[in-house]
Amino acid sequence: MDAHVDRPIRIVVAPDSFKGSATAARIAEAIATGIASGLAGIRPEPVVRTLPLADGGEGSLDAILGTGTATEHRIETTDAAGRPVTARYAISVDGRTGIVEAAEANGLPLVSDLPLQPLTASTFGVGTVLRAVLDAGVEEVVLFLGGSASTDGGAGMLQALGAALTDADGRGLPPGGAALRHLNGLDTAGVHPRARSVRWRIACDVTHPLVGPRGTAAVFAPQKGANAHEVRALEEGLERMAAVLADRSGIDIRGLPGAGAAGGTAAPLVALFGAQLEPGWRVVAASVGAVAVLADADLVITGEGRFDAESLAGKVVSGVREMTPNAVPVVVLAGSVGLGPAELRAAGITAAFMLASGPATLDELRASVLADAERAAASVVRLFAAGALRR
Amino acid sequence: MDAHVDRPIRIVVAPDSFKGSATAARIAEAIATGIASGLAGIRPEPVVRTLPLADGGEGSLDAILGTGTATEHRIETTDAAGRPVTARYAISVDGRTGIVEAAEANGLPLVSDLPLQPLTASTFGVGTVLRAVLDAGVEEVVLFLGGSASTDGGAGMLQALGAALTDADGRGLPPGGAALRHLNGLDTAGVHPRARSVRWRIACDVTHPLVGPRGTAAVFAPQKGANAHEVRALEEGLERMAAVLADRSGIDIRGLPGAGAAGGTAAPLVALFGAQLEPGWRVVAASVGAVAVLADADLVITGEGRFDAESLAGKVVSGVREMTPNAVPVVVLAGSVGLGPAELRAAGITAAFMLASGPATLDELRASVLADAERAAASVVRLFAAGALRR
Repeated sequence: MDAHVDRPIRIVVAPDSFKGSATAARIAEAIATGIASGLAGIRPEPVVRTLPLADGGEGSLDAILGTGTATEHRIETTDAAGRPVTARYAISVDGRTGIVEAAEANGLPLVSDLPLQPLTASTFGVGTVLRAVLDAGVEEVVLFLGGSASTDGGAGMLQALGAALTDADGRGLPPGGAALRHLNGLDTAGVHPRARSVRWRIACDVTHPLVGPRGTAAVFAPQKGANAHEVRALEEGLERMAAVLADRSGIDIRGLPGAGAAGGTAAPLVALFGAQLEPGWRVVAASVGAVAVLADADLVITGEGRFDAESLAGKVVSGVREMTPNAVPVVVLAGSVGLGPAELRAAGITAAFMLASGPATLDELRASVLADAERAAASVVRLFAAGALRR
Repeated sequence: MDAHVDRPIRIVVAPDSFKGSATAARIAEAIATGIASGLAGIRPEPVVRTLPLADGGEGSLDAILGTGTATEHRIETTDAAGRPVTARYAISVDGRTGIVEAAEANGLPLVSDLPLQPLTASTFGVGTVLRAVLDAGVEEVVLFLGGSASTDGGAGMLQALGAALTDADGRGLPPGGAALRHLNGLDTAGVHPRARSVRWRIACDVTHPLVGPRGTAAVFAPQKGANAHEVRALEEGLERMAAVLADRSGIDIRGLPGAGAAGGTAAPLVALFGAQLEPGWRVVAASVGAVAVLADADLVITGEGRFDAESLAGKVVSGVREMTPNAVPVVVLAGSVGLGPAELRAAGITAAFMLASGPATLDELRASVLADAERAAASVVRLFAAGALRR
């Protein structure tokens, strides 16, 4: 037997959530169970670490809270339709970082009981949460975007933070992206003083710009209920917002990749406060110390609901591959696999397996995802170990 | 790098057919393509051998012909309904072994254009093929059973070989299992002389006995169109056949495992000519020299349409595991996987993966099985190789 099998196989389980099916934490747990079952009796016992990740959208706050490095807080704020809602946020245990998931206030699921209101949906509630975080005296604010109901270019948020957005007659703008068409004045004198001094890290899970054919109105507003006419109105409002921000700050954020996340929420934070946009997976991974954990693996198992070309463009799976040393194999488990062998090879993905045990509809796959993940993980690690034991 | 990676990885691809989807040969080819794609660039180049197998039913003759160790012949005979049909059989290149697939004459698909006739379906056509093989002067006859339309206890076959089966009035019995209820006399004086001298190897893909609650009438006749009343008539006929055979030969084959294959076709061959029943996979594997090929593998990939508990009871997959040295990992690719990690471990199966790339119906899976096999095989070998390269 080769010398290298005398030390335990170290496996890191670092999946994204399977959207609509299971959280990253539950998927990771199922995979870990499968590993234990598949390698039962192997000595020395394998060392398995679970590292549930997130792409910066839904589940990011939970991923970080799950590590125990931050504590959860709650605040009364407003949803995208202006109704009261309790939002969660987190403060790191050292008190230096505030962590906000925008969708806790402006998320689409929160207003799913109402007809969609793409023109008036607002980020005001997000600004209220951010005020609380700034009040807490943090030095850094991490803001996760994604899953939003709004396309207001962050206007409501900016108002909640103390800015005055006015029309040509000096009247304050009402909530929503459509009103931005009338934006004329922007006065930041009343903005929370710490807004300028903290470091803003904006985690976005898309690379879409604020405006244009790939912009947030054109691409995402239809998912938020906008028809073609409304998309044009929102686009016009965002163009106006960009012009006013450029006028005020000298920074043109219209083409910035990621500024289109969450209906343009990041736009004023970038233009006015120097916020940095980062891929969401990277912010989560940094928050949970992923690089150090992945560096110490013999095998990494990641996964997500749908593994396809988009997964390779700044999602958790490609992030895991990027953070893992080249020599360490990365295996993807997914509800569907849309990449062929040549594409996997090019992406440095060792293997990708679909989670299913027979013919199944999407709903059936969702229902059985934990059992299928457990089963597939057992086979993956046994096959890997068989290779490792080969003489 | 460890010494053992300096020699090529040797992979043997030994699947069963995926019934209703693809032949074993095509599946093996797709897997080999996936291996080549998955390990492209690996040096030294892997050595891949394909070894399409069969369980003794449909496809067995093709599996053997595919190896080039036997030549194909054709003969005019009759189907289970007594209509003319051309059946194929094979004679080994050394002329010593005749290979007959019963379903070429009495197969259910051949009579799928007719209403099912469970009471009268006959093996007479099988006997005609066997006569030809005996006429060729072989020393051994391999008979693959399975997929039959008949439940006549081999009566028709026996008649075609020259035996007289008569009722109490001395009249010859008409075709089919129901007529056996009236069986009284069995005269083998006219049987082909070589029938007694050749070695009979009967390959059966089930372990069901001739009669009883697990017998061929109870279990299989309903699939051949028999209602409850007809099942009882067929059971009565097979009981009568068994009694007459026992009377004639002193051998009671009623409880013999496998004697229920193909509606009891093997029963008279066992009782009268000392035929041996063997698992079908074993006969195919022996015919293609599987043991020697499998002994020389670092990794074996097998597979079948549905991998479940039944697969472990004398099918190709369990056969491959049995024939492969213990230290060599065996991976199963299947259209559905019905076994969990603990069951795989107990069966000595290293890993099992389902062939699919997303939510899919059975028909969709069947249509995409070759592409899915290629893709899964690429991931399997890359993961195995990653293990092998682990330091």
